[in-house]
Amino acid sequence: MKQNKMIKGFSKFTKEQKIDFILKNYVNDQTTKNMLESFWHHNQNIQKTLDEFSENTISNFPLPFGVVPNFLLNDEIHCVPMVIEESSVVAACANSANFWGKRGGFKAEVLGVKKVGQVHFMSSLSSKYLYEIFNEVKEDLLNDALPLIEKMEKRGGGILSLSLKDMSNELDNYFQLFLEFDTCDAMGANFINSVLERMAKKFKELVAQRSNNESAIEVVMSILSNFTPECLVRAKVECDIDELEDPRIGMSGLEFATRIKRAVDIARVDKYRATTHNKGIFNGVDAVILASGNDFRAVEACGHTYASRDGQYRGLTRASIKENKFSMWLDLPLAVGTVGGLTSLHPLSKTALEIMGRPSAKNLMMLTVAAGLAQNFGALRSLVTTGIQKGHMKMHLMNILNQLKATEKERLQAVDYFKTETVSFQKTREFIEKIRS
Amino acid sequence: MKQNKMIKGFSKFTKEQKIDFILKNYVNDQTTKNMLESFWHHNQNIQKTLDEFSENTISNFPLPFGVVPNFLLNDEIHCVPMVIEESSVVAACANSANFWGKRGGFKAEVLGVKKVGQVHFMSSLSSKYLYEIFNEVKEDLLNDALPLIEKMEKRGGGILSLSLKDMSNELDNYFQLFLEFDTCDAMGANFINSVLERMAKKFKELVAQRSNNESAIEVVMSILSNFTPECLVRAKVECDIDELEDPRIGMSGLEFATRIKRAVDIARVDKYRATTHNKGIFNGVDAVILASGNDFRAVEACGHTYASRDGQYRGLTRASIKENKFSMWLDLPLAVGTVGGLTSLHPLSKTALEIMGRPSAKNLMMLTVAAGLAQNFGALRSLVTTGIQKGHMKMHLMNILNQLKATEKERLQAVDYFKTETVSFQKTREFIEKIRS
Repeated sequence: MKQNKMIKGFSKFTKEQKIDFILKNYVNDQTTKNMLESFWHHNQNIQKTLDEFSENTISNFPLPFGVVPNFLLNDEIHCVPMVIEESSVVAACANSANFWGKRGGFKAEVLGVKKVGQVHFMSSLSSKYLYEIFNEVKEDLLNDALPLIEKMEKRGGGILSLSLKDMSNELDNYFQLFLEFDTCDAMGANFINSVLERMAKKFKELVAQRSNNESAIEVVMSILSNFTPECLVRAKVECDIDELEDPRIGMSGLEFATRIKRAVDIARVDKYRATTHNKGIFNGVDAVILASGNDFRAVEACGHTYASRDGQYRGLTRASIKENKFSMWLDLPLAVGTVGGLTSLHPLSKTALEIMGRPSAKNLMMLTVAAGLAQNFGALRSLVTTGIQKGHMKMHLMNILNQLKATEKERLQAVDYFKTETVSFQKTREFIEKIRS
Repeated sequence: MKQNKMIKGFSKFTKEQKIDFILKNYVNDQTTKNMLESFWHHNQNIQKTLDEFSENTISNFPLPFGVVPNFLLNDEIHCVPMVIEESSVVAACANSANFWGKRGGFKAEVLGVKKVGQVHFMSSLSSKYLYEIFNEVKEDLLNDALPLIEKMEKRGGGILSLSLKDMSNELDNYFQLFLEFDTCDAMGANFINSVLERMAKKFKELVAQRSNNESAIEVVMSILSNFTPECLVRAKVECDIDELEDPRIGMSGLEFATRIKRAVDIARVDKYRATTHNKGIFNGVDAVILASGNDFRAVEACGHTYASRDGQYRGLTRASIKENKFSMWLDLPLAVGTVGGLTSLHPLSKTALEIMGRPSAKNLMMLTVAAGLAQNFGALRSLVTTGIQKGHMKMHLMNILNQLKATEKERLQAVDYFKTETVSFQKTREFIEKIRS
């Protein structure tokens, strides 16, 4: 059944032809075709927009779009849209929101908005000579970029700094132009890359002139960096330790605080745990990022690099118990936009941003990081009290019951039965078969 | 318009009631309701399945589902499903597939399948005494877990190792049970967590008995680790340097090889570049992971921790030029499943897995990592030749033209015009307005 020779011109096929090709070569099954087509949007313009986000698109892959109401952040109640396929992420965030909603809510602040771009180049000139030339041409470089940054400057942004970095200790002849930007409410990738490509060209030209050497500089590449440690948010929760007591947790405030802090501290020292700890944070972060039409790969890469910044990969949250106060906070760098990109093109990103009250980039940053903190608190709360499996398996049971096409009555019976039994696909099937027979 | 008091019982609302709540409190606009509902699947059973993947779901968030044909991996032609919203990711992967398809294709091998789980606990017993007890009870612990692992053992998996780790140098009184698992074609999270929770309980009990101390051990948490450095794939491309010459690149094979290697080497030494370099790899990886119904947060967290394993965050690919051979490869750890989880529940994951030929977990691992390598090569090829903006902006232009509701004729004119102009939203609008007037 496998394709045995290369196909030419596939990208020029219509969507129907692409699906037919797949059917002919990979899945000889009309239901596959029907299934793929059943997810097309009935409005052809909307479908066309979705198709053209990417290439060779044959359908829309649906991810659950959920919301978390009652999310108290900086004294305002928010309804947080979350796009995520993993069961219990929205539930954990909602539980945390309810818990902290009664204890002052989440507080967040933007600690910086600096984005980063680099022109990577090789040069056989001496470092000293290169710095001399750089200092002479720096103003020219900035002036040459003006036509590209004019509009951004009107919005309050632009280039914040431009420096030369000697990286030749790391790699022979390797240098960088290192730039910092403020891109206001835009993620800014296209803006930054355009500026960098132009600056690289001009720099090469000017250095060639000054040094009388056409090949004084070889530009390797010009591109933004997704590592933006100074585009940073802090989200925090805090309350008196006594206030932590909760009938659903069933232990003293101090014991609960101690357990949470211990779990946080473990993730600081053990990278095996840190990976999963941070993965849980990104469950919340990515869900908001996806909903808002931003790029979760960029946010993930940035956050994980940040987690390893001191030489060991560590958990991103911190917790403290001091003078009868419990605090837990998350510092996370992330570069997002609320204008440009998909944010205004994707029909449901637009909706998600409207539900969030058309936030500025800063407000979206704060809400996203607060959702990450909420997620982490929710996961740790389960882990250090009942264990993770209890909640997980309940969601998992629902999925299995759907697969077995259980009726409402069967579902209720199953939920009751599995209150005291470990869920597995086989056990569930056996149980359903038993009550059916 | 913002909600001014907490709402109770939201999760019990019907989907319609949830949307009405949002309309009443956040977006007073009937089009929002219509838009959310327009993405519901017409088949109620399918929609119910999607809704129950998560909580408080109000709609399906569509991501473009594309395919890359002609993907030659281990001498077989594959059609790779990719779910990704970022323009040019599928195109870059398709271009790399075409390029390497003529040069022997991608080769991949699974270097290991070990998954990891941990029981984190505190103990005031001495390390020496604890190791003594652990060695005595180790067999009992494994035997006690048997009922949970029986089925996995029949499939060829199970517990591969169980050890005690003294972490008290890192944190006072902190120890771990550290387990390695083979979970065959399942991602195995539920399996691993169930085993760990049971083992934690038994361990606490046995240590209490042996030490005559009820509180000899306090279990902090029992959970799998997403950091699985020995669940590892290597994907590779290789060819003679002369073969790298390509009319669309316009430089000698050696020059092209040198430029690619330089870009790879830079990402090894500079973490600002490494972050973006790896982000590009995950563009490809996550697109396949999403399509297959696996968890991209888990795969991201694992890969990025791996990138920082020697104390500096580094690019994940490597390149070499030796004896007239150019090679480029990617070692990436990732834990995925092709049974269980969403893989068989999500209607389009099922389709994606069918297009991939119902792969084993190992085959999916190889295809995913090869897609990551393809993505990285594609991105670097653009970066070190034409620059990234040329391709990006073409895709971006299409999105802008859609937003401006350009006709087919206007689109063709715009594409032609912007061949020599820098794309921006404003310029595109001006151009369209001009030709319309």
